[in-house]
Amino acid sequence: MDSILVSLEEMHFVLRELADVERVLQTPNVESLADTELTDAILSQARHFAQLVLLPLDSVGDREGARWTPQGVTTAQGFREAFRLFVEADWNKLTMPVEYGGHGMPVLLSTAVREIFTAANKAFCMCADLTDSAVQALMLAANESLKSFYVPKLVSGEWSATMNLTEPHAGSDVGALRARAVACEDGTYRLFGQKIFISFGEHDLTDNIVHLVLARTAGAPEGSRGVSLFAVPKFLPEHSHRSSRNDVQCAGIEHKLGNHGSPTCTMVYGGEGQGAVGWMIGEENKGLQTMFVMMNEARFHVGMEAVALSERSYLQALAYARERVQGKAIDGSEEPVPIIRHPDVRRMLLSMRSQTEAMRALGYLIASAQDLTHHHPDPAVRDERERFLDLMIPVFKGWVTETAVEVTRTSIQIHGGLGYIDESGASQPLRDVLICPIYEGTTGIQANDLITRKIVRDDGAALRHWLAEVSQTLAELEIVRTLDDVGLRLREGIAAVQSVADWIIAEYRLHPLEVLAGAVPFLRMMGIVAGGWQMARAALAARRLLEAGTGHEGFLQAKLTSARFYAAHVLPQAPALATTVMHGGITTLDEAAI
Amino acid sequence: MDSILVSLEEMHFVLRELADVERVLQTPNVESLADTELTDAILSQARHFAQLVLLPLDSVGDREGARWTPQGVTTAQGFREAFRLFVEADWNKLTMPVEYGGHGMPVLLSTAVREIFTAANKAFCMCADLTDSAVQALMLAANESLKSFYVPKLVSGEWSATMNLTEPHAGSDVGALRARAVACEDGTYRLFGQKIFISFGEHDLTDNIVHLVLARTAGAPEGSRGVSLFAVPKFLPEHSHRSSRNDVQCAGIEHKLGNHGSPTCTMVYGGEGQGAVGWMIGEENKGLQTMFVMMNEARFHVGMEAVALSERSYLQALAYARERVQGKAIDGSEEPVPIIRHPDVRRMLLSMRSQTEAMRALGYLIASAQDLTHHHPDPAVRDERERFLDLMIPVFKGWVTETAVEVTRTSIQIHGGLGYIDESGASQPLRDVLICPIYEGTTGIQANDLITRKIVRDDGAALRHWLAEVSQTLAELEIVRTLDDVGLRLREGIAAVQSVADWIIAEYRLHPLEVLAGAVPFLRMMGIVAGGWQMARAALAARRLLEAGTGHEGFLQAKLTSARFYAAHVLPQAPALATTVMHGGITTLDEAAI
Repeated sequence: MDSILVSLEEMHFVLRELADVERVLQTPNVESLADTELTDAILSQARHFAQLVLLPLDSVGDREGARWTPQGVTTAQGFREAFRLFVEADWNKLTMPVEYGGHGMPVLLSTAVREIFTAANKAFCMCADLTDSAVQALMLAANESLKSFYVPKLVSGEWSATMNLTEPHAGSDVGALRARAVACEDGTYRLFGQKIFISFGEHDLTDNIVHLVLARTAGAPEGSRGVSLFAVPKFLPEHSHRSSRNDVQCAGIEHKLGNHGSPTCTMVYGGEGQGAVGWMIGEENKGLQTMFVMMNEARFHVGMEAVALSERSYLQALAYARERVQGKAIDGSEEPVPIIRHPDVRRMLLSMRSQTEAMRALGYLIASAQDLTHHHPDPAVRDERERFLDLMIPVFKGWVTETAVEVTRTSIQIHGGLGYIDESGASQPLRDVLICPIYEGTTGIQANDLITRKIVRDDGAALRHWLAEVSQTLAELEIVRTLDDVGLRLREGIAAVQSVADWIIAEYRLHPLEVLAGAVPFLRMMGIVAGGWQMARAALAARRLLEAGTGHEGFLQAKLTSARFYAAHVLPQAPALATTVMHGGITTLDEAAI
Repeated sequence: MDSILVSLEEMHFVLRELADVERVLQTPNVESLADTELTDAILSQARHFAQLVLLPLDSVGDREGARWTPQGVTTAQGFREAFRLFVEADWNKLTMPVEYGGHGMPVLLSTAVREIFTAANKAFCMCADLTDSAVQALMLAANESLKSFYVPKLVSGEWSATMNLTEPHAGSDVGALRARAVACEDGTYRLFGQKIFISFGEHDLTDNIVHLVLARTAGAPEGSRGVSLFAVPKFLPEHSHRSSRNDVQCAGIEHKLGNHGSPTCTMVYGGEGQGAVGWMIGEENKGLQTMFVMMNEARFHVGMEAVALSERSYLQALAYARERVQGKAIDGSEEPVPIIRHPDVRRMLLSMRSQTEAMRALGYLIASAQDLTHHHPDPAVRDERERFLDLMIPVFKGWVTETAVEVTRTSIQIHGGLGYIDESGASQPLRDVLICPIYEGTTGIQANDLITRKIVRDDGAALRHWLAEVSQTLAELEIVRTLDDVGLRLREGIAAVQSVADWIIAEYRLHPLEVLAGAVPFLRMMGIVAGGWQMARAALAARRLLEAGTGHEGFLQAKLTSARFYAAHVLPQAPALATTVMHGGITTLDEAAI
């Protein structure tokens, strides 16, 4: 039996049938994971750990939050012990570099594992996830000396790391930041400035915290070209002959809508006057470039957070709908029935499920593209997957995080009055997910990136390449006559994307503002169609397995239903959004209107 | 200058140009309000009071909530004093009966006033709003003795009242309730049972609380036909020779997602053994009928709560977008600009505004229909407006409460990272509004009511009548050539509604479950088109005033933009939803799927 937390059957299906796991596991870098049985074992263990250790702390974190005093931040009860167990079980080392003691797991597999952990406790996961990103930044840009000093401790889990970008006046526009780094004779720097919204900027889970901080050196160019990256540890290395505590303080934590278990810190560098000692990572003024390499991955991870919380809230709502007895069935029974028998409750559940399946399938395909881009022996495959990746990252991040808001909110609706009560736990996924369309670049920023850098810049080449891939799926659907409804709606969606993309490319040079006013509706239609494509692929795979007589029939039949539901309930929005993109932009720009 | 809380200019425009205020003010029952200048004065005073007294307490209520002890419930700091001022200024008496000291104000006008108060502090308003509903129930069904005992104290604001329907196993299915009422020889009853989710079931704002309670007498029929309504005061009348405190207790209050300032109580009747003394209101076993008469009004009020919070969050987001400087404008300036200059921020703001305008316009039109239904001298007008009312109440309640979730959430998105922080106040409207699609009948229940009782039962007669009314607006649009885009999308929307309604009427008898699986998408398209109709009417009125050279040009031009925006961004969803209703139902019913 699958548990309430995640459906491993669904994960395995997507990995095997849609996300090319076999091909990923055959790339040369993956030595220790040569078969899918091991994959199965890892996911089962991850679920076991998530259920036993992380899930019970999710509501504790939500209720207690983290506590700040001038001396530091205390995480919610149980978080310290859970983090110790997490590290002991090596779960923090999944994708960490092998040469420093990590497991070098493919992104595809680690994505599935992280989805499980995030579904159980998103706030808890952020500490390890940020550390993972920091390790990758160090591996990418730091010199050997910095790497050998920091990376082993970060891999072992003795230390954790943070990312410090945002300042009060520099949010979406990171290049506007003002934190200063003053060069010292010994090659170190002294940092001064304030950073806000720093997740796990201060906490009690590890012995030390390494802050990766964006700041400007003296005389650096204005804007994003004058930003450098620094490593600033909370406690200085002992051999430095200075006071062990660095001049960096957490000045307070935020009270937030969700993610209560994750302290969101205001960090003050150089508040005591002497400046926080830091080491430059990579070249001067190239800090944002390093960060932008990380950014694509961070955006992908945020998207997967949204998938994880969608699945969590779907399974919560499903369990409730099976259990809650209320009202009589329309088809005649006189006894009250579980609400899952009511057509509208079924509609809500299938809307949650089919969209979550579509989002996950696209997510895993993107994860697999990351592995193949980096490690496939054939450069043509690497190139092709990289183009797909660049096109799809903003679509995925924007579309799934917006859709997850709708999905998690639907769970509250299914719970009825109880959904509004904290005790039910129904609102936490919504509250936790509402940051996802904002951090690592808002939906608007994803949509601008999609239009300007992913569509207009190459005159739609990457898009056409992707549409050709989708057309292959359409061709397969035509052969299989039983999925006509899916094919019809997908074809309409594709046509809509095609015509809008042509319009965008033609109009952008003349009327960029009008085009950008439709950027988010365009991103949404891209996501909806990309999701529909995945549902079509899933339906084709399910049909193939059913014909072959292999696999779990109930599961595969439900897949077909999901695909049909998505085709009728979600895909029709794509042509409507096409109308909005092409005709709605101009109405947005009237200066007198607002 | 209009303030941050509400736009009186917008309210006046809707009252005068769209909601027939002149006709309402000419009905015979309205003596004291014979001109619209008085209307203007009342709205100005209401806004003044809301801003001075209610608004500052909104975040206090959100932060502090209410506190429960076995002795009772204490509301947030300042609520008691504010309630005293509210009553002193007669704001609680707007629609109360004139013969008992109320003002007998038309629903249309009181709707606008209540919108202002709700925008300022929804939680606070619930106490007076529930009391208002209870007075109407008493006026409708209670005998003279009960009326003369309770109504004066409720009108004066010395006492308040509650509605007690829900029990743990009887939520949407009210008829499943089990509370018992035992008849006594003196004509009173003793009540036993537990009620949950009772707003202001216990509090410190008034001297006494009158609970209107649904319960079953001995031997009453099962289900909704055996439910009677009782008045159960917290403190018994002195002449009854019993202990002054009745046997009704608040056993606790809920911790909720929003509406923290409004205590949501679990009420226990007869917990001390002797039973709570109650008086039957109206006839035995006719309690639900009385409640259902109230229900239409309650549903309307919940819809208006959603409108109020949408406006509040729009104005919050607008003010923030004008003030927050971030990023450069795409059209070339080198200096950072207020984010309102960014096309996607404008899109979000106009999406909030145009939908809120559409919702309000439909709401006021429904309010005016209530007045005309009750008081117009011509029975044909009364009949016609009643048909409109019956058709539109579920559409309005379902559509605006769902749309308000999207609108209030968009405000968080416009605020960016700050929107996720409690301090910004950006999330409170969303949290407060999320109960609106649930209480007084979920969206699913509204949609079922729409399909079964409002469309199928009369074979679409009321719907056709309404569509004919919309066609007149279309005809006017055709004459005015400058609004072609609005006419085009509205025509498509109308055609979609028409074809789906025909399909529903034909299919319902054969496949009711399939039709009901599309009930909510159908309700949404009805709402979208009804809103589009209002936007078209607003655009026609604005154009007329512009041509006549009367009115505030900037405001009227913005109205035209709102209508065009709505036509391009919202109305195209209607045909997409038509596809979903007609093709999506079947995919929902597959028993094997979930």
